[in-house]
Amino acid sequence: MKTVSEKISFGDSLTLESGKVLSGFELMTETYGKLNSDKTNAVLVCHAFSGNHHAAGISDGETKSGWWDEIIGDGKTIDTTKFFVVSLNNIGGCHGSSGPTTIAAESGQPYGANFPEVSVSDWVEAQKLLADHLGINCWEMVAGGSLGGMQALQWAISYPEKIKKAAIIAASSKISTQNIALNEVAREIIKKDEHFHNGDYLSKGELPKNGLKAARMLGHITYLSESNMSKRFGRKLQDPENKMDADVNYEVENYLQYKGEQFSKTFDANSYILMTKAMDSFDPAKDFDNDLVKCLQNIQAKLLIASFDSDWLFPKEYGLDIQMSAIKAGINSAYIELDGDYGHDSFLFYSDQYAAALKNFLNSNG
Amino acid sequence: MKTVSEKISFGDSLTLESGKVLSGFELMTETYGKLNSDKTNAVLVCHAFSGNHHAAGISDGETKSGWWDEIIGDGKTIDTTKFFVVSLNNIGGCHGSSGPTTIAAESGQPYGANFPEVSVSDWVEAQKLLADHLGINCWEMVAGGSLGGMQALQWAISYPEKIKKAAIIAASSKISTQNIALNEVAREIIKKDEHFHNGDYLSKGELPKNGLKAARMLGHITYLSESNMSKRFGRKLQDPENKMDADVNYEVENYLQYKGEQFSKTFDANSYILMTKAMDSFDPAKDFDNDLVKCLQNIQAKLLIASFDSDWLFPKEYGLDIQMSAIKAGINSAYIELDGDYGHDSFLFYSDQYAAALKNFLNSNG
Repeated sequence: MKTVSEKISFGDSLTLESGKVLSGFELMTETYGKLNSDKTNAVLVCHAFSGNHHAAGISDGETKSGWWDEIIGDGKTIDTTKFFVVSLNNIGGCHGSSGPTTIAAESGQPYGANFPEVSVSDWVEAQKLLADHLGINCWEMVAGGSLGGMQALQWAISYPEKIKKAAIIAASSKISTQNIALNEVAREIIKKDEHFHNGDYLSKGELPKNGLKAARMLGHITYLSESNMSKRFGRKLQDPENKMDADVNYEVENYLQYKGEQFSKTFDANSYILMTKAMDSFDPAKDFDNDLVKCLQNIQAKLLIASFDSDWLFPKEYGLDIQMSAIKAGINSAYIELDGDYGHDSFLFYSDQYAAALKNFLNSNG
Repeated sequence: MKTVSEKISFGDSLTLESGKVLSGFELMTETYGKLNSDKTNAVLVCHAFSGNHHAAGISDGETKSGWWDEIIGDGKTIDTTKFFVVSLNNIGGCHGSSGPTTIAAESGQPYGANFPEVSVSDWVEAQKLLADHLGINCWEMVAGGSLGGMQALQWAISYPEKIKKAAIIAASSKISTQNIALNEVAREIIKKDEHFHNGDYLSKGELPKNGLKAARMLGHITYLSESNMSKRFGRKLQDPENKMDADVNYEVENYLQYKGEQFSKTFDANSYILMTKAMDSFDPAKDFDNDLVKCLQNIQAKLLIASFDSDWLFPKEYGLDIQMSAIKAGINSAYIELDGDYGHDSFLFYSDQYAAALKNFLNSNG
């Protein structure tokens, strides 16, 4: 699989949904496979909350395979012998694209909490500039899970003529009150970390790792299903020799301690806050009198809306709600509820059923 | 309603399940109504995680009515013109009974994190000493919701001849992996508060209020149902004039900020940790080869097991599991799934259906 990693600088100034302007920005990208001469085989994959540009394979300098490596590759569901797959770290992220850890030209200091608020629409605008840069006039498919699925939906709404298919997986047209509440708890935990300093921790040479760790522990619970956790850990006691913390009793506590600790070393706290805010505010129907049917009416892309039965964070009702509105709007869409052992995280993992749905959708005629 | 508040000192030393010994302890109690001359009309109500002895009415020095005031009182579901209701703050709590905020005789300092680990069984043992003190040989009913329901179940197991009826509401015979995980996140948040000092905050004149606040915000989400939060708050934006925090956007965020803040002023962080650990470890079947049927076999009390349809923290499967084991054990039990608008918290609030179930159970022949 031909893999190219590239950081691309854009001179364009980007006016954000908030009204603020980013005067130039950088996007960290990876591409897999080859763009054909007609430039008609391009697939954009959009990352979820804590994902990044590294979606497949193991590229230089990376130690882990990409977040959708089970799906993207030569002969895989999104077959890189046929398709040219584009992946990027979104603006506001912390893996190479412009975001809170970037040095601001004006101050010579990291943006920190001063990095402007970004939205799902803003990400789509930045991705549109990336498509222009790559000479891609129309995506064969835009696909993503969770917050990535929201971007796929927004693409279909924002650029009806520039996207043939949108795979909207484990996603929602707007998150629930409970989801907003859970995001607020995560933000509260991070902001009250003694090393957060109102978001200016980098310029002080500190990191709010405790806050990030606990926020991720909470997030992790919401990404998994109860049945999966029960099957995997049950009420098994932790082997004392490998305790992450002296107070740990059960294996599941140790697992969360470990996962949270690892995450806190690789993610930026301001990005965490900014990404959750983007998730909270996503609600494309708000520009259409809060009418999702009206919002979807101009879509020309074919939609695949997929939910997982064990997902309690973005349950199937969210997917069904998009599908019902799509039917009322008279656009081309299919809904499927998939078996998934991993709760919300099921969108990351291969299953025969999931792969068949996605592969047949991608290879179908437009 | 005759109400008596009393702090009772016990000279007895109490050997805890952990093997540690409390040499003497105090229980803060409230009673409602009058004990009859035969002492056969006594009802014990056991509080849940953050509850206390103040279960009904508004007594001296209290500004809020008790946690089960909708259920307990003259002419109410648990009718204090007929029954003598006993309520207490459990040991390890922070509302007057011996717990982490108590001054330890040996050191002259608050116990803090050195207060011994307590279990649901330990609470039942302390309540048994309270019954002896009051001259009550047999409870007409022991009742409670959530962690309180676990105490009611433990009473029926520990003292088959001293309890006629057990109302086990919104409870479980052991909590799930997901529940343990959520408790661990709450503990992690509290313990990493810069003012926690490994639990010795009182002797340093500090309070880990930020940690308690965020832990409670998380808890609050789990106590409510998604549909209740959606109905009540939806995605309504917060009126800017009443924001608890400048970064708040939605009403639900403000509500959680407010609730968390209030809680952090009234609860003790070590008690929070200790209570969640007691909840995690509750599993009476563990002493019966992990066989709940065997564990329930000696019960003589009649059981009422009630779950609420909107409770996702302790879902109905937990109640059904106890009921199925009770049926197999051949003991007298009834299970009911109740409508409840408030998720797990539904056990606190009156509804016709709930009150009828509980009242008829209490007034039935043994």
